[in-house]
Parts: sequence; C-alpha cells; structure tokens
Amino acid sequence: MSAPSPWVEAFAPATVSNLGPGYDCVGLALDLPGDHVLARRSERAGVHIVDIDGDHGKLPTEASRNTAGVAATQLIDRYAPGAGVELRLRKGLPLGSGLGSSGASACAAVIAVERALGLQVGKDALVEACREGERIACGAAHPDNVAPCIYGGIVLIAALDPLRIVRLPNPTPCHVVVYTPDHEVPTAKARAALPETVPFAAVAENSARLAQLVHGLHENDLMMVGEAMVDRLVEPVRADLIPGYRDAKAASLEAGALACSISGAGPTTFALTDDPQRAKALLQIFDDTYRMAGVRGEGRVATISGGARVVSPPLH
Amino acid sequence: MSAPSPWVEAFAPATVSNLGPGYDCVGLALDLPGDHVLARRSERAGVHIVDIDGDHGKLPTEASRNTAGVAATQLIDRYAPGAGVELRLRKGLPLGSGLGSSGASACAAVIAVERALGLQVGKDALVEACREGERIACGAAHPDNVAPCIYGGIVLIAALDPLRIVRLPNPTPCHVVVYTPDHEVPTAKARAALPETVPFAAVAENSARLAQLVHGLHENDLMMVGEAMVDRLVEPVRADLIPGYRDAKAASLEAGALACSISGAGPTTFALTDDPQRAKALLQIFDDTYRMAGVRGEGRVATISGGARVVSPPLH
Repeated sequence: MSAPSPWVEAFAPATVSNLGPGYDCVGLALDLPGDHVLARRSERAGVHIVDIDGDHGKLPTEASRNTAGVAATQLIDRYAPGAGVELRLRKGLPLGSGLGSSGASACAAVIAVERALGLQVGKDALVEACREGERIACGAAHPDNVAPCIYGGIVLIAALDPLRIVRLPNPTPCHVVVYTPDHEVPTAKARAALPETVPFAAVAENSARLAQLVHGLHENDLMMVGEAMVDRLVEPVRADLIPGYRDAKAASLEAGALACSISGAGPTTFALTDDPQRAKALLQIFDDTYRMAGVRGEGRVATISGGARVVSPPLH
Repeated sequence: MSAPSPWVEAFAPATVSNLGPGYDCVGLALDLPGDHVLARRSERAGVHIVDIDGDHGKLPTEASRNTAGVAATQLIDRYAPGAGVELRLRKGLPLGSGLGSSGASACAAVIAVERALGLQVGKDALVEACREGERIACGAAHPDNVAPCIYGGIVLIAALDPLRIVRLPNPTPCHVVVYTPDHEVPTAKARAALPETVPFAAVAENSARLAQLVHGLHENDLMMVGEAMVDRLVEPVRADLIPGYRDAKAASLEAGALACSISGAGPTTFALTDDPQRAKALLQIFDDTYRMAGVRGEGRVATISGGARVVSPPLH
C-alpha cells in the first residue's frame, strides 16, 4: 500500500452577491478571512469528509449533504470518475451570514481537489461543480457567490445555461464596509420571501440600473456605481427580515456612503466608499445603528480581491 | 410691426430603440435620412404648425395633437412662457416604422425652437419636452427614441424619474443593417401586446444580458454585444406582429449577423455586423426573406451617428 498523498490546502474568500440591481447575476470577492479546505487523494473511491472545524457542529460530514462534498463529488464524477479524495473543512465564514459561506466551502473544496488529483478543468467547470453544492445549501443552483469566489474580482453571470461569466473592472479606490449583524437569515427563507412575478415595467427599471452599474465600473466612477445600486424588488422584501437594516442604511448614506445594500440574502450589510477614513466611520455607524436596534454584530473594512486559490503548504 | 424672424432648420435622425434586452432603456441614432423641422419666432403666442410635408396627410397640424407641437409647447411653457413660434415639418421617416418617427419630429422641433428663441436649456430638458410628445404619439412618455435622438450615439436611460441618461461607447466598426417591411405596427398595439407581469427570474435574466451588452460596448466587442442581444420577453410577442420576421432573423444569423432584433415596436428589423461586405449581404437577405413572406420593404446599411442638430441655413 502506498503512502498517503500529501494534503493540498485551498482558500476561498467571502463574497458579496446581488449588489443592488444585480440580483442573482453580479458578485464580488473580498479580502476577508474565508474558508479553507484540505484535500488529498484517497484509495477509497468518492468523497469523504474527514472532519469539519469552525462550524460549531452545524454542518453534516456526509458528503452528499455537504456543499463542499457535493461540489467535490460533481468534479470527480465528471473529470476523474472512480477517483477518491478525503476532505478536511476549516470554516472561517459564519453560516447564513450572506457572505457566501456555503459557496466558499464548495469553491475551496473543488480548488483543492483539482490540485490533489492533478486536474485542470478551467474556472467555468469549477463554478458548475460548485453550483450543485449551492443547490444542496439553499435550494437553487445559483452561481452568484461561487462565480466571484472562483474568479475573484467582480463578475457578471451573463447567462446560466450555458453558463457565461464575464469579469467586470474593479473600481479603485473602493472600500467595502462589511457588517454582519448577529441575526441569522436562512437563504431559503430569504428566497421564499421574493415575489413570484413582478410588473413588466420593473424589468426595464432593474435592467437599466444594472447597466448603469456596469457602465460605472468601466468608467471607474464609484459615485455612478452607487447611484445605480438601487433595487426596488429584492431589498425592500429582505430589509424586513433584518432588524435595524433600514436605519443602518439611512445612517450610512447620510454619512456619505456611495451605496449601501444587503449582501446576498443578508443579514450582512455592506457599504461602498472611496475614502478609507470614511470607511472606518461607516463601520462605526453600522455598529452603532445595529446596536440601537438591539442587534450585536461585527464588521470589517475590505477591498475587492482575488478568488479561491491553492495555499499549500498548509497554513495551519 | 417687425419683420418676421428667420427660419431655423433642425434635423433629427432615425433611432433604433430596445436593442434586445435594452427594452425601454437603450437606443441609438443612425445616419439615415430623418425628420426636419423649421421654426421661427412668431408674435402669436404658442405653437402653430404652418404645414407638414412628407406625411401623406396623416399627421394633425393642431399643435396639441402633434408630437412636434406638444414637445415645442412643453419647451416654451417651461423656458419661454408667452413666446410664440411657427413650425414647418418635413417628415423623412415613415410613420409607425419602429425608427422613432414621432420622436424625431419632436426632437427636430425642440432643437429648432431652442435656437429660434435663443434658449439654451440643455439636452436633458430637450428630452423631457420630447417625452411629452411621445405620450401623445404612443400613449407613454418613454424616452427610448428621443434620448438617443437628442444625444446621438448609443444611450442608456438609467432612470426615468428623475431622468438619468448615460452615453455608452459606440463600437467600431459597426454596421447597422436596417430594413423596414411595408407592414405598419402601431406602437400602441405593440405595447398592448406586452405582458403585464413577468416571472421574477426574468428580471435577473434580462438585467444580466443588458449588463453584458454594456460590457461588450465598453470592450468594443461586437460579438459579445450580439451574444447579449437576447430578449425572451418582448421580441417573441412582437415577432408575431411582423410577418416574415422570424425567417428574416434566422436567415441573417445564419449568414453571420452578430445580432438581429426588432427596432422599437417594429416592423423595422435590424442586424449588426462589423463587416461592410456582410452588411450588404444581410440587406439582401432581409429583402429576400421578407419578400418570400409576401412583404415588400426597403432597407439601408447605416452606422451609429450624432443626434439632432441645427442645420440652418435651410437645406431645402
């Protein structure tokens, strides 16, 4: 029997999805602590999750019920049928926070497995595998977290079938103030709160705002990006699920944030500014306003960063 | 009594609105024959249409029922209350063709009146005045023809209230093959055929496609622009109102058009290509396929051009 293969460690970042009018189709990666997954080739076929750390015991180790397990299984089934891997998950992102926690685990897993098995499948194939993980996690195979998590930067999901991902320009300077109130919003519940149909006129309104957002990114005009980040469809519904959000948004805009919205399904709240001092002030404002609403939380000032990547040799 | 003021002549171009997923929010101006309006200051208060040429007697000369008259009246009411102008309209665009005929008359009128009265109100104010003309013409004050007609090039109407117009980059080379079948589609009927509500998922799909279109324009990637010009909401409904359209579209794409869609409410059909020889071939294909469907028509190869402008001294 051969010696066990070495562990490969991969990191996957936190992601902000939705970005106002970019519901389900725009997301960005942040230089915040994210998830780590270690993978090694195993003689047992299939995916086996050896242990999970940092999840407070909430995540299943059964591969078919775990987003990382499902994504890794998809990758193997398609590109290395019959192969086996062992995974160790190190959760850095809180669950149900709106920072793409489930997606990050899947992305770190496929990146680690790709390397451990000596595969080179390309980013879109990695995203496709991770989408299946998202289906387990939140009931829909939406790639709006996993696409930016794999690609890094800001991405547009131009089409779902076939998948078409486009990298958008990153504005600079751009500080993303991210605050996670301690109030879990399950993605499935947040999705269920959405309307099934919308007035036809809302299509043009939302499309035009997203088009303006993309234009603003190309012009490196963060003020225009902020102006475009208006969403009358999803945000009003989700705001009701996050105590204190409306106050936090109002206070941040009053204090000069160029935009403020809900990351993913929430409750994480984010604001954009081009000024590092203002970013610190906005973080304090989020903390103060949520506290006044009776909700504690924690936040950071981040910038838009690269995507999931191998970080072997293991960092810890 | 003073001598009459000299006539000021303005030209306003044909425009393509909608551009696939850009329903109601994206349009472009073309270097095709358009509409001309002559205006001069008059001692009689208000707007008086002296004559209309080229409309085959279809348009009312009563200012309150004529798009040019309404737009000019709006401009005067707001910026020169009590002033009077006389207008002469020279229609170059066919009515109900989908090339922004009603909008062009309004735009030429306000440009001519602005100059005749010595006003300088700015482009957005001109667009706002012309929107009221569109309300008379087609029942909705949508600026998707008049905004590109005033601004020229390709514009995004990012928001309606308050109006927010953004110029988008023009791709080069870009040949716009425009074909107008002889089959009138009244805008009001075309609007009435639209659904009142759409599935929520359609919002993300349409928004993402329009975002990709804007990205493609910024990248000067006409192939991506064409890829993005997919519209599952409006085009299928309107295609049914234009005999031969589906065949014309299929044949043009097969022959290498990067995109083919309906201009405005139709029936004008347009295709995009970066190749001047292919543009000529596509024009022939449109002619052939519409003819096979029993519809005659005429077309041209155009490029994206500047907007409405004063052309005094009068050209004719």
